[in-house]
Amino acid sequence: MSDVKKVVLAYSGGLDTSVIVKWLQEEYQCEVVTFTADLGQGEEVEPAREKAQALGVNEIYIEDLREEFVRDFVFPMFRANTIYEGEYLLGTSIARPLIAKRLIEIANETGADAIAHGATGKGNDQVRFELGAYALKPGVSVIAPWREWDLTSRETLMNYCEEHNIPVDFSTKKKKSPYSMDANLLHISYEGDQLEDPWVESEEDMWRWSVSPEQAPDTPTYIEIEYKSGDPVAINGEAMSPATILETLNKIGGENGIGRVDIVENRFVGMKARGCYETPGGTIMLRAHRAMESITLDREAMHLKDEIMPRYAKVIYNGFWWSEERRMMQALIDASQEFVTGTVRLKLYKGNVEVVGRKSEYSLFDSSVATFEDDAGAYDQKDAAGFIKLNALRMRIAAQKGRTFLDRD
Amino acid sequence: MSDVKKVVLAYSGGLDTSVIVKWLQEEYQCEVVTFTADLGQGEEVEPAREKAQALGVNEIYIEDLREEFVRDFVFPMFRANTIYEGEYLLGTSIARPLIAKRLIEIANETGADAIAHGATGKGNDQVRFELGAYALKPGVSVIAPWREWDLTSRETLMNYCEEHNIPVDFSTKKKKSPYSMDANLLHISYEGDQLEDPWVESEEDMWRWSVSPEQAPDTPTYIEIEYKSGDPVAINGEAMSPATILETLNKIGGENGIGRVDIVENRFVGMKARGCYETPGGTIMLRAHRAMESITLDREAMHLKDEIMPRYAKVIYNGFWWSEERRMMQALIDASQEFVTGTVRLKLYKGNVEVVGRKSEYSLFDSSVATFEDDAGAYDQKDAAGFIKLNALRMRIAAQKGRTFLDRD
Amino acid sequence: MSDVKKVVLAYSGGLDTSVIVKWLQEEYQCEVVTFTADLGQGEEVEPAREKAQALGVNEIYIEDLREEFVRDFVFPMFRANTIYEGEYLLGTSIARPLIAKRLIEIANETGADAIAHGATGKGNDQVRFELGAYALKPGVSVIAPWREWDLTSRETLMNYCEEHNIPVDFSTKKKKSPYSMDANLLHISYEGDQLEDPWVESEEDMWRWSVSPEQAPDTPTYIEIEYKSGDPVAINGEAMSPATILETLNKIGGENGIGRVDIVENRFVGMKARGCYETPGGTIMLRAHRAMESITLDREAMHLKDEIMPRYAKVIYNGFWWSEERRMMQALIDASQEFVTGTVRLKLYKGNVEVVGRKSEYSLFDSSVATFEDDAGAYDQKDAAGFIKLNALRMRIAAQKGRTFLDRD
Amino acid sequence: MSDVKKVVLAYSGGLDTSVIVKWLQEEYQCEVVTFTADLGQGEEVEPAREKAQALGVNEIYIEDLREEFVRDFVFPMFRANTIYEGEYLLGTSIARPLIAKRLIEIANETGADAIAHGATGKGNDQVRFELGAYALKPGVSVIAPWREWDLTSRETLMNYCEEHNIPVDFSTKKKKSPYSMDANLLHISYEGDQLEDPWVESEEDMWRWSVSPEQAPDTPTYIEIEYKSGDPVAINGEAMSPATILETLNKIGGENGIGRVDIVENRFVGMKARGCYETPGGTIMLRAHRAMESITLDREAMHLKDEIMPRYAKVIYNGFWWSEERRMMQALIDASQEFVTGTVRLKLYKGNVEVVGRKSEYSLFDSSVATFEDDAGAYDQKDAAGFIKLNALRMRIAAQKGRTFLDRD
Repeated sequence: MSDVKKVVLAYSGGLDTSVIVKWLQEEYQCEVVTFTADLGQGEEVEPAREKAQALGVNEIYIEDLREEFVRDFVFPMFRANTIYEGEYLLGTSIARPLIAKRLIEIANETGADAIAHGATGKGNDQVRFELGAYALKPGVSVIAPWREWDLTSRETLMNYCEEHNIPVDFSTKKKKSPYSMDANLLHISYEGDQLEDPWVESEEDMWRWSVSPEQAPDTPTYIEIEYKSGDPVAINGEAMSPATILETLNKIGGENGIGRVDIVENRFVGMKARGCYETPGGTIMLRAHRAMESITLDREAMHLKDEIMPRYAKVIYNGFWWSEERRMMQALIDASQEFVTGTVRLKLYKGNVEVVGRKSEYSLFDSSVATFEDDAGAYDQKDAAGFIKLNALRMRIAAQKGRTFLDRD
Repeated sequence: MSDVKKVVLAYSGGLDTSVIVKWLQEEYQCEVVTFTADLGQGEEVEPAREKAQALGVNEIYIEDLREEFVRDFVFPMFRANTIYEGEYLLGTSIARPLIAKRLIEIANETGADAIAHGATGKGNDQVRFELGAYALKPGVSVIAPWREWDLTSRETLMNYCEEHNIPVDFSTKKKKSPYSMDANLLHISYEGDQLEDPWVESEEDMWRWSVSPEQAPDTPTYIEIEYKSGDPVAINGEAMSPATILETLNKIGGENGIGRVDIVENRFVGMKARGCYETPGGTIMLRAHRAMESITLDREAMHLKDEIMPRYAKVIYNGFWWSEERRMMQALIDASQEFVTGTVRLKLYKGNVEVVGRKSEYSLFDSSVATFEDDAGAYDQKDAAGFIKLNALRMRIAAQKGRTFLDRD
Repeated sequence: MSDVKKVVLAYSGGLDTSVIVKWLQEEYQCEVVTFTADLGQGEEVEPAREKAQALGVNEIYIEDLREEFVRDFVFPMFRANTIYEGEYLLGTSIARPLIAKRLIEIANETGADAIAHGATGKGNDQVRFELGAYALKPGVSVIAPWREWDLTSRETLMNYCEEHNIPVDFSTKKKKSPYSMDANLLHISYEGDQLEDPWVESEEDMWRWSVSPEQAPDTPTYIEIEYKSGDPVAINGEAMSPATILETLNKIGGENGIGRVDIVENRFVGMKARGCYETPGGTIMLRAHRAMESITLDREAMHLKDEIMPRYAKVIYNGFWWSEERRMMQALIDASQEFVTGTVRLKLYKGNVEVVGRKSEYSLFDSSVATFEDDAGAYDQKDAAGFIKLNALRMRIAAQKGRTFLDRD
Repeated sequence: MSDVKKVVLAYSGGLDTSVIVKWLQEEYQCEVVTFTADLGQGEEVEPAREKAQALGVNEIYIEDLREEFVRDFVFPMFRANTIYEGEYLLGTSIARPLIAKRLIEIANETGADAIAHGATGKGNDQVRFELGAYALKPGVSVIAPWREWDLTSRETLMNYCEEHNIPVDFSTKKKKSPYSMDANLLHISYEGDQLEDPWVESEEDMWRWSVSPEQAPDTPTYIEIEYKSGDPVAINGEAMSPATILETLNKIGGENGIGRVDIVENRFVGMKARGCYETPGGTIMLRAHRAMESITLDREAMHLKDEIMPRYAKVIYNGFWWSEERRMMQALIDASQEFVTGTVRLKLYKGNVEVVGRKSEYSLFDSSVATFEDDAGAYDQKDAAGFIKLNALRMRIAAQKGRTFLDRD
């Protein structure tokens, strides 16, 4: 073992991370600082204090990070209309850099020389925590117990608890789900168990945040979201904080059966994995933001964003939020959002998010140009002939020189 | 006027293109060849023969191009999961290169030196027709009457008909829609009229191919689509031709309220325009193809396709199907599809397309690696530590040299 | 003719633009304002005043824009290591947006409603001037005499001069070159005449700014260029203004036979054209900047810049400097340059620019990690095994499933 | 140690890999098969046979792979004008996949279950060998002695030789270079020793393949290279095999002081490293191929290649030659090369490669369009006005709506 003196642990208050507290104290003979954050996962964080105290922890950090999470991580990501592999809204990925940042800041405050987390050695989260930690504090030690210990079955874990007087009822207060789950204000995710066969449909019982489209109301809900420079600032005319915006959209979306996806995704560590996600508010925001951009963004600005987006999504998915490349792409994206201001009107109905209206004081939609009616000279149709001729010139020259598409492949 | 001798006209049989026949004969004193294609627009094409004859046309081409359209244009495009500006499935764009190709082939067969079309000077279709024509026959003349004539109002057009004995009931057989529409097997589009205000919701009456989600059945429909090397080949176990696949999906999708979008898009000629589209089968195929790829495609192959897609979509939208750049991107895309073979199971319900299962003899999903359970040594979690350490190395060095993200913007 | 009242002309003081002054006064019956800029083309600009006065111009603008040109246009472009089509350093392209900007600003100051330029209808410069003008003053009229008039041969032009008492000796003071040339602080270009056959070698007589490598000194010249946040700020320890930096490098480079290229390039208007360019200082700056970045830039930052560069170059070449997409890419590029600070040492010898040293207080080159010698634990070679294993995982799974590269294509 | 039974070793015949033979036999108690390839490194490979025999090796593979190397690896890469980080022609990177392929094929032939190589744990070559091996034979074991053993100093290595009767004079036949070197037909590389300080200029003594520009002849050498579909096929009218082409260009280039670079590059394993490279023939081919493309390639085909190139280069540099993404990009690149046929004329002089002429039966350069003289109607300059107007439309609308660039940053 290395000579770690004090370690900051991302502590949920659950059984696994409680075992980790004890294991770190024993194996590393080091002091453990716990850090528990409210990111909107929907569980109380304050009970973690008592549990940590019972485990002999002296420095206990419990923080409500919901506003920071949405304002500084979720919203910037949504400015890019970010989707990983065409389907995944990165709900887990985007929370990790904030946790990594706080782990390191707390390490700096408490004089700790290491951080620890409860992520397994097969997933992306270990990568995201650790890349963030190394980027922010290059000399830090990282302890990932799941890659080190031999408590790899439920049975050995339970035995460990018994031997070390860790109260096992920690995790039995709520009905145990067979799925591996992660939640924050942006989404809740499910992996494992019967999802490991990608041909098997998920059970209705699994989903926790939304009703199914079948169970959603029979009448649509209309909402208006107001944007300012790329970020939502009000719903139905009521100004709200970032976290409140997302909470509100989660509620409305969840009630209308919005935001479930069931995908097989490619992990950074190299394998494919099945995941089911509920992202009600995020699903609404994605459509709304695009609609807002559709009337306020220059064409080439939009296309440039669209081309850079998959790479931006991959960088976040792979855990490189705290990197030069993410900062650079963010600068490009943010430089486009100044005028993405206005209002989008949406119809929500049984899983559908339909854009039904958009308006903006900065709208670039100019009906006097686009109209099928008389445009009073706003657009000279004869310009189109020259436009087409010169766009075609390179192809006409090639064809004149005998290159043709008609008899090729 | 130029010295055009014979012109091939894309002739719908409707009023506008009938006027164009007469106008070409008069203004250009040239022979007119008509070409009418069945691309699945849902209207009889044979009646165009009689109308053309009545206008004195001697060479009349009427063709059923549905299979070629889907096999050689729609399917290759869907291999790329193509979407323009995040929403538009390119239903109109993808039909134009085939029409351009046939116009030119007919010109070559009939010895014509020009082609003509009925697209306006404000839209993308003029560009798509003409770029195709110039690329395939560089010396061809192109006549776009809407950019030339002064019959720009309904009234002047009607007067022209009266003066030239063109039967005006041409267009009155069906209830006249106030919208400008275009249809083929992939979609039907609506533009103009009240859509010119992007804040106004579309009327339910406008939509023709699908029921609204509200009107769709209250019970879901499950289907299975079978893919072979990137293209769908069977539905619910029944092998079908390309056009039949799409027709079948259109029917099922339309019945379940699937495939409507309402967007503001950026035209190649420089303005924004509101368009509403129904693409029931295409919407299903997009989700199904991605799901098929999710278990059969290598991660980096998928990401490369995703990054190239927006550009590929733009090239098609802008009318450059018959270009080197489209061929090159197609080669890249097609090189990835060999193993995109298997079956996708979908749940269709009131506008939703949910992927609920996917399987393939070529699946790269390996549950023995991905499992949360014991993997019998398929994956060594300790490898992850080295993987992360070296991925972090460049950032650790930078941070050691004093570059930090904590106090930068 | 339109109802232009006052037009600002980009006026060189040469014969062609002098004819344009007169032609504008006659044809458009409008007042002409002349604008002559010193961009480092190596000719006096002050004589343009007297000539303009002789043509009856009342409002005459003559300006030294060299510092603004280099600081706000050349340097930002070089931060991206910009090259068009692998060879061209964009010497002409980068000057046009500044001229367009000043034309519009002067139009605003003088109440002019139009701008005019002397570029032909076949080249890129008309596009660059006019796109800039329209972007900065959307209602402006643009007059491009070469696209309108019939003075298309030297003879008709001379006759026009005689008829209108324009002194023809304007252009005879220096030996007339057979080439079409353009010059500014970044480069001088040659087109036309015998260059129109791309198989014919350029004549030694053509080149004006540099000696040939053969004529350059037999001993190398060493220089050191100091960078600060991406821009050069000193040469051989002497701090200099942006324009002086470039003038100095042009001189040193020209003396050492550096910076000639002879290419066939693709114009935005659709044809290929042969061009020869001398860019002595720019050629040195390109190598020097890359070398500076090689020790100060993060790997992924560099690769992201490299991937975006060709598009950035195209945007500038095509005349879209004043566009959202250029601003966005600039934001991305500039976000990478904060630490591109230090010194590069170069050996210049008969056309060669060799990087022989680079150092920086922000260097990310860490010899303690990279060394072949004992690194005292800075890098654990065992990490590499895990790194490789997980990078290979997706390919191993594919190969296990029977996909192999050995017998494919 | 694992239960490896037989291992195929990439064996150079030098001291280090001879020690590895013995070490593998001892540590792994396994049979060793040696594989020695002539890739044009300029050393006899046949002597490796006797050395291997002396070490008790029974299965000895010695092969001349020069033609396959150039035809199937170097030429395809040069079709893309591939450069890593703006400077490096990937001379080492491109040889590794061929070696990996032969190692695996030999393993399959000999029934070996492992491969081994002599690359260190800090470099890129270990990654390239191993990624290739895993992709081609997923169950193979890989042994990288430099990551495992403790013979990490020259002294311990010598002691090992003495103890095991390995003749140390192996490596003393030629004057020992202080640099770590690698050579094949494409290049020779130098790393380590005094190069570890990036401010220190390389010694003239280090370079082995080329004279310095100063030492090169005082008169230029002109050559003509003939291309067929993207690959060089003849020099000065003489048809040659791929390897002979490259050997010939290496000779001519080296005599003229061509192809030295001195760079700091970013390794895949995360650190920066100084490398010096001599690539005489490759440097000539890069310029020649671009020049050939400049008259035969469509503009957008060229730009698409240019944008994809940095990623293609990175994939090769990082060792992913045997990957789906490389195959896909190769398909895109190769689809552009059909007409890249013709002749390039070059002037070589003291380190400079100047393109002085290019011609092709497929040339798209059309002097009748490009000419400054009368073009007899080949191009209508008035088309340019419409072309510019519509290209400017989006920007004019934005400016009319109050968005201006004049007072923004």
